[in-house]
Amino acid sequence: MSGSPLQFFFDFSSPYGYLAAQKIDALAAQHGRTVDWRPMLLGVVFKQTGGAPLTEVPVKGPYSKHDFARSARFHGIEFRMPPVFPIPAQAPARIVLWAKQGNAAGAAQVAKALYRAYFVDGLDISQPDVAAEVAGRAGFDAAAARAAVDDPAIKDALRREVEAAIAAGVFGSPFVIVDGEPFWGMDRFDQLERWLARGPF
Amino acid sequence: MSGSPLQFFFDFSSPYGYLAAQKIDALAAQHGRTVDWRPMLLGVVFKQTGGAPLTEVPVKGPYSKHDFARSARFHGIEFRMPPVFPIPAQAPARIVLWAKQGNAAGAAQVAKALYRAYFVDGLDISQPDVAAEVAGRAGFDAAAARAAVDDPAIKDALRREVEAAIAAGVFGSPFVIVDGEPFWGMDRFDQLERWLARGPF
Repeated sequence: MSGSPLQFFFDFSSPYGYLAAQKIDALAAQHGRTVDWRPMLLGVVFKQTGGAPLTEVPVKGPYSKHDFARSARFHGIEFRMPPVFPIPAQAPARIVLWAKQGNAAGAAQVAKALYRAYFVDGLDISQPDVAAEVAGRAGFDAAAARAAVDDPAIKDALRREVEAAIAAGVFGSPFVIVDGEPFWGMDRFDQLERWLARGPF
Repeated sequence: MSGSPLQFFFDFSSPYGYLAAQKIDALAAQHGRTVDWRPMLLGVVFKQTGGAPLTEVPVKGPYSKHDFARSARFHGIEFRMPPVFPIPAQAPARIVLWAKQGNAAGAAQVAKALYRAYFVDGLDISQPDVAAEVAGRAGFDAAAARAAVDDPAIKDALRREVEAAIAAGVFGSPFVIVDGEPFWGMDRFDQLERWLARGPF
């Protein structure tokens, strides 16, 4: 492996974040990179940037719902619009930060399981018990995951992560920073891929 | 040629609209389609949808300027951020509607010339005299183009076009509708291409 890791910022309520999560590890690996999975809270970020959940924007909202599903089909990814949407993502984000301690691969593994539980199985992963159960099924200690959601140290860690995302200029999900270069949206994966293959352009 | 034309909605102040304008005719032709070039006014559309010029959104603004230029390089398209930005696009939009009367190819030709004058040469095409001169250099009657900007019938035509765009669900630029299917942004040209090649997915 060479080159710095891809900084992959995502919110668990973001359909495009979910789609990107299915592709990012393979894309990085193809170019000898690893991925740093960095959950954040778009609701907090939006307070800085004036953003709003796509589905709540007039006219753009209905288009977005159509585009989520069409984009999933285009990329060959299973997707169902969750019955509860959007959700506050504190619980799953904290579980990822907990799983990440000393185990970068664990963060990716539990994050993918949580995303799938939400965007395929329709589970409300904003509920700590639900999120912990999903972590348990993914091979983690469910009771420890559940405790992590209320752990002050983990809560602090998430606050610091959200602040770090804002400081890094993150304003949406997914958002990838590599070699200091920002790429917003899964629709910039084509440009991200060129960057990884050939460097700055 | 078979199949209905691509409805290509664009605003002259839109960098991504300019980039899309360099690709849309060839993309359509590859799939036996034509393009209906439909200038509209994003400022009026934004009043319906609560949108705002990208460059004026906090945090997203600086990223967007970086992304305009990077996207142009990625697609191999000449681009310079214009000194005056954004601009009200009434004058160039009216000239396109004037050129379009009985001449669909004329609309594309003058629209590309106007876009290039703005996003390559940095001319302020919101000025009627400037826009008319650009039309003149593109092979149109400059005096007639200048008169069209103040022609009440052409003004009415643009108002109707903007209303039609809003009624069709357009909320950004570029925006393509084909066979009733909406595609927002040049970053959906990959999905648009699949639609043209294989039909609904």
